[in-house]
Amino acid sequence: MTVIEELVRTLGDAVLTGDRISDRYRTDASLAGRSLPKAVVRPASVAEVATALKICNEHRQSVVPQGGMTGLAGGANPEADDIVISLERMTGIEEIDSAAATMTVLAGTPLEVTQRAAEEAGFLLPIDLGARGSCQIGGNLATNAGGIRVIRHGVTRDNVLGLEAVLADGTVLSSLNKMVKNNTGYDLRQVFIGSEGTLGVITRAVLRLRPLPAGRLTALCALESYADVAALLKRAQQQLSGLSAFETMWQSYFGFNCAEEGLRFFETKPAFAVIIEQDTHGRDGEREGFEAFLGQMLEDGLIGDALIAQSEKEAQAFWRVREGHGLDRLPSLVNLDVSLPIGAIGNFAEECGTALRAAFPAAHVSFFGHVADSNLHIAFSVPGASEETLHEVDGIVYALVSRCRGSISAEHGIGTLKRDFLDRSRSPAEIKVMRRIKAALDPNGILNPGKVLGRYSRTDL
Amino acid sequence: MTVIEELVRTLGDAVLTGDRISDRYRTDASLAGRSLPKAVVRPASVAEVATALKICNEHRQSVVPQGGMTGLAGGANPEADDIVISLERMTGIEEIDSAAATMTVLAGTPLEVTQRAAEEAGFLLPIDLGARGSCQIGGNLATNAGGIRVIRHGVTRDNVLGLEAVLADGTVLSSLNKMVKNNTGYDLRQVFIGSEGTLGVITRAVLRLRPLPAGRLTALCALESYADVAALLKRAQQQLSGLSAFETMWQSYFGFNCAEEGLRFFETKPAFAVIIEQDTHGRDGEREGFEAFLGQMLEDGLIGDALIAQSEKEAQAFWRVREGHGLDRLPSLVNLDVSLPIGAIGNFAEECGTALRAAFPAAHVSFFGHVADSNLHIAFSVPGASEETLHEVDGIVYALVSRCRGSISAEHGIGTLKRDFLDRSRSPAEIKVMRRIKAALDPNGILNPGKVLGRYSRTDL
Repeated sequence: MTVIEELVRTLGDAVLTGDRISDRYRTDASLAGRSLPKAVVRPASVAEVATALKICNEHRQSVVPQGGMTGLAGGANPEADDIVISLERMTGIEEIDSAAATMTVLAGTPLEVTQRAAEEAGFLLPIDLGARGSCQIGGNLATNAGGIRVIRHGVTRDNVLGLEAVLADGTVLSSLNKMVKNNTGYDLRQVFIGSEGTLGVITRAVLRLRPLPAGRLTALCALESYADVAALLKRAQQQLSGLSAFETMWQSYFGFNCAEEGLRFFETKPAFAVIIEQDTHGRDGEREGFEAFLGQMLEDGLIGDALIAQSEKEAQAFWRVREGHGLDRLPSLVNLDVSLPIGAIGNFAEECGTALRAAFPAAHVSFFGHVADSNLHIAFSVPGASEETLHEVDGIVYALVSRCRGSISAEHGIGTLKRDFLDRSRSPAEIKVMRRIKAALDPNGILNPGKVLGRYSRTDL
Repeated sequence: MTVIEELVRTLGDAVLTGDRISDRYRTDASLAGRSLPKAVVRPASVAEVATALKICNEHRQSVVPQGGMTGLAGGANPEADDIVISLERMTGIEEIDSAAATMTVLAGTPLEVTQRAAEEAGFLLPIDLGARGSCQIGGNLATNAGGIRVIRHGVTRDNVLGLEAVLADGTVLSSLNKMVKNNTGYDLRQVFIGSEGTLGVITRAVLRLRPLPAGRLTALCALESYADVAALLKRAQQQLSGLSAFETMWQSYFGFNCAEEGLRFFETKPAFAVIIEQDTHGRDGEREGFEAFLGQMLEDGLIGDALIAQSEKEAQAFWRVREGHGLDRLPSLVNLDVSLPIGAIGNFAEECGTALRAAFPAAHVSFFGHVADSNLHIAFSVPGASEETLHEVDGIVYALVSRCRGSISAEHGIGTLKRDFLDRSRSPAEIKVMRRIKAALDPNGILNPGKVLGRYSRTDL
């Protein structure tokens, strides 16, 4: 019996083949996926995930786990001889424990659904990113997807208390812990988070919830140098408790997007624009404190100008420039995602911009980022860019990142698109240990083969 | 050549044997260690750690890594045929990067030394625990040691950005990352943190620093039920940004220690006493806001009484009761360390107290904990307690913990003392995966054998 025959016999309608495989299983948001898989399994329970994996493992059949397909590194894209396991039917919030401030959720649940459920229960789920409407919790955790609220409550892996994952051989590994402190052996949950589906298929998680802020204060500041941006960040972290966003836009990005949106905020063209947001608690004097802080920063010369949003609408205008949807009309737009020690970001952006503009004089190159999280994004577009051009861009940027001891992937992961550059951020010894862990948990190498670590042989272990 | 001969030939004076092995290498603070090791290696560099491990690995020689020996689970205690690697000579802060807010430190550096260095540079190192004067950073990380400041900045593993560890075969695995976001493959640092020296020897770390608070406001509150404690915690987390401690004492603990210290705070005997602390930023109105919050809690009936410390000395008096040094004079004192979902802690403490007092009518049993971190401590003392008695206490407590889906070790780790109870908090599948990771990284099983996972054979993998 073939693997597909056995899957169909055991799981019936949960298995799609031939024409029943729609195009959405082809590629994530990188649009780099070229093939449909030979079958798609859509389990409705953890037991069905385990059954599917057990069968595939016995047949040495490669498996690609899929969530909401919003990734940008090709980590969920199948080859023609892969079988996809899509978590899309495993949705739902199983429990909100108000006393423990936790939520237990199935992996296929869209992020936005979990955010809303948390809010209805009076909590904030601090995991947030642009793709919230379609990305799924399982995929968020498998990629340790970052986002814009990291500054206050940490990265995604810091907000996961418990995890359930199914191993390649079908073993269900259930660590649905609800406690902040738990030192009973190795922290298995951290092994799976960020492993991009290569070590197990995440099926359930216990997420940590935080108090829901009463409101938010938002300001847009104009600054003249990166040194001022770094100094303002430090002062804001010292003095604004509840600081919940610090988004930095270089003039290359801010100017472009203001023009696209038809918005004008400052008299002059500031070298940097920073959105500062602070969560409020509904107590007296919070706005006055925020204004006093900005007043002090003006007086100290760290900022040249500042606008405090007087309404939700004004705050949204600041964020519209930051979201930069105007960039989408640029041809062959690429969003590079790197991280660097905070103090090094200013010089890096300058050197990187110079190098890219020298190599591609017609290119759009602009910079923005979550500086407090050491995370810089580079928007790059050049008309008629070929695959080779884009590979060359990667080469230029990642060589510079490597020289500054940065990371070639801050939040997007490695997948297939950054796989050939992994050694710019990881030593041979580190990569070898990753392969050994992979071989220990998935000895037949059926889970998402070729992703993150590439293909390798036993002698590489 | 024997392993010791080869170590001496290669590392010379760094190797202690015979009479040169002093008693301090025998046991950690559990006092459960019985034997001196057959040799102690005291490397002065990462290269020497690598050399020592390579030699031991070739000789299949078991190695026990030692830090400040302040652990409470026996994780650093040697057997007579082990060789100890002590990190005590590898001390020093290599760098403080103010822009990145990071500190790079050698593993043998005492925690208090790193805390002071951070403060001198204008930062807070959020890792803190009672043994700060003698414990070492490497040991703190190897055990993911918790502490009293977790509520604001997370557990120890959340405050480590980079790590260097030497594997059993002498490979130096250097991941000295300074970035908050870094998604380039598996998070190896999290594999070593909390593994209690069974996967590698931590030699260096990049720690995350936070803004140094301008000051602290401290209050001692009296409450009448655990439901009120949980409700107060939730309100404090919502409304006090900068909440930096929430320490709960049951009357059994609070009453005993007030009497021991000759202190009296309240007219009546409250069922619970809670220390609330808030970091301040040196801005106007902070004390008034803190007072208003407590006033509101009084008005809402959540607290029966509250004292706000008017001086550092008054705050210290609150903390003296919490530290509970008076307990030390009790015979055979045991401090059990468990965690439970926050909502379950109240009932657990009641049932646990009843069960222990029924089994040992002459016992002192008292409860205190970091409730916000789901962490409960149980102080137990009975005159003339034998090893069997203490084992019986463990059995009673951990059975209850298991029923409440809690953890048998919140912050102390497993070591040897909790090893036989690991299955109360971890499933057979989880333990099997831990063993597979252990075998992948330390195939000869030389690193801290028998700790955490016990001894096992190949067929258990």
